[in-house]
Amino acid sequence: MKMIIAIVQDKDSNRLSSEFIDHNIRATKLSSSGGFLRSGNTTFLIGIADERVDKVLEIIQQTSHQREQFMTPPVNLDNSLDSEAAFPVEVQVGGATVFVVPVEQFKQF
Amino acid sequence: MKMIIAIVQDKDSNRLSSEFIDHNIRATKLSSSGGFLRSGNTTFLIGIADERVDKVLEIIQQTSHQREQFMTPPVNLDNSLDSEAAFPVEVQVGGATVFVVPVEQFKQF
Amino acid sequence: MKMIIAIVQDKDSNRLSSEFIDHNIRATKLSSSGGFLRSGNTTFLIGIADERVDKVLEIIQQTSHQREQFMTPPVNLDNSLDSEAAFPVEVQVGGATVFVVPVEQFKQF
Ligand code: NI
Ligand code: NI
Ligand code: NI
Repeated sequence: MKMIIAIVQDKDSNRLSSEFIDHNIRATKLSSSGGFLRSGNTTFLIGIADERVDKVLEIIQQTSHQREQFMTPPVNLDNSLDSEAAFPVEVQVGGATVFVVPVEQFKQF
Repeated sequence: MKMIIAIVQDKDSNRLSSEFIDHNIRATKLSSSGGFLRSGNTTFLIGIADERVDKVLEIIQQTSHQREQFMTPPVNLDNSLDSEAAFPVEVQVGGATVFVVPVEQFKQF
Repeated sequence: MKMIIAIVQDKDSNRLSSEFIDHNIRATKLSSSGGFLRSGNTTFLIGIADERVDKVLEIIQQTSHQREQFMTPPVNLDNSLDSEAAFPVEVQVGGATVFVVPVEQFKQF
């Protein structure tokens, strides 16, 4: 038995919850906030048999890995500035930090 | 020293907090929400000497184990349907998921 | 790699966050509440290389250790009671509870 602690961006957390349910993986969600500038994240706590750890890591990677996304920045109301600012720009979203921790006893009452 | 992480239903969390205080067990509460349909749960984080782990598990089991409870379902306003629906039914409440994790260092500052 | 779980009083948590950022230590904050009477605390989750564990503990100790502070109690409106009550009194603030837990795998996606 292992405990997996996964911290993902809020925007990925619903999709990740659904994936866990699809794959019959029990996860508890803790509301958290980021160090650095990564505000708004969710911490998942997952108890899992040793032989399913790799599957859980694979699901987290597929659902929540860091990737680029095009985003239209808010329109610049001051039209003296460079008008290019309103074109879509590429931003980084997602990303997951994952710890696998040993478990000495696991009980369900 | 061990760290015990216990996830219980919200409805059992106040009683469990009181038990911990009675037995001089320090516990930190994290607000959490469930995987599956177990919405509204509380995660307790407990630091405890090795020889008291069994006592903590016993308290969690006694206070928060899964059990049946009779509940009266909301009255059915549509009286064309089976009137038996308003009789008390047995539902499952409670339940605890508990991890015991090794601790390499424990400090209080 | 270790996981450090540190529980500090809310009043120390912003200063501790800033220290972690200054020292390039990634920490996730979980909102928590205390056992005993220590209401309003924050749980930090920190993933850190083995050789930096002592530095993290030192930062937590310096920023959040228990100490005395002078506080002026609320003025007693009933002036028949001892007027000394309005003088500053020494109270204990701060304090940190810290666990260092082994990590078997650490991934960033
Ligand atoms: Ni899938
Ligand atoms: Ni008792
Ligand atoms: Ni510093």
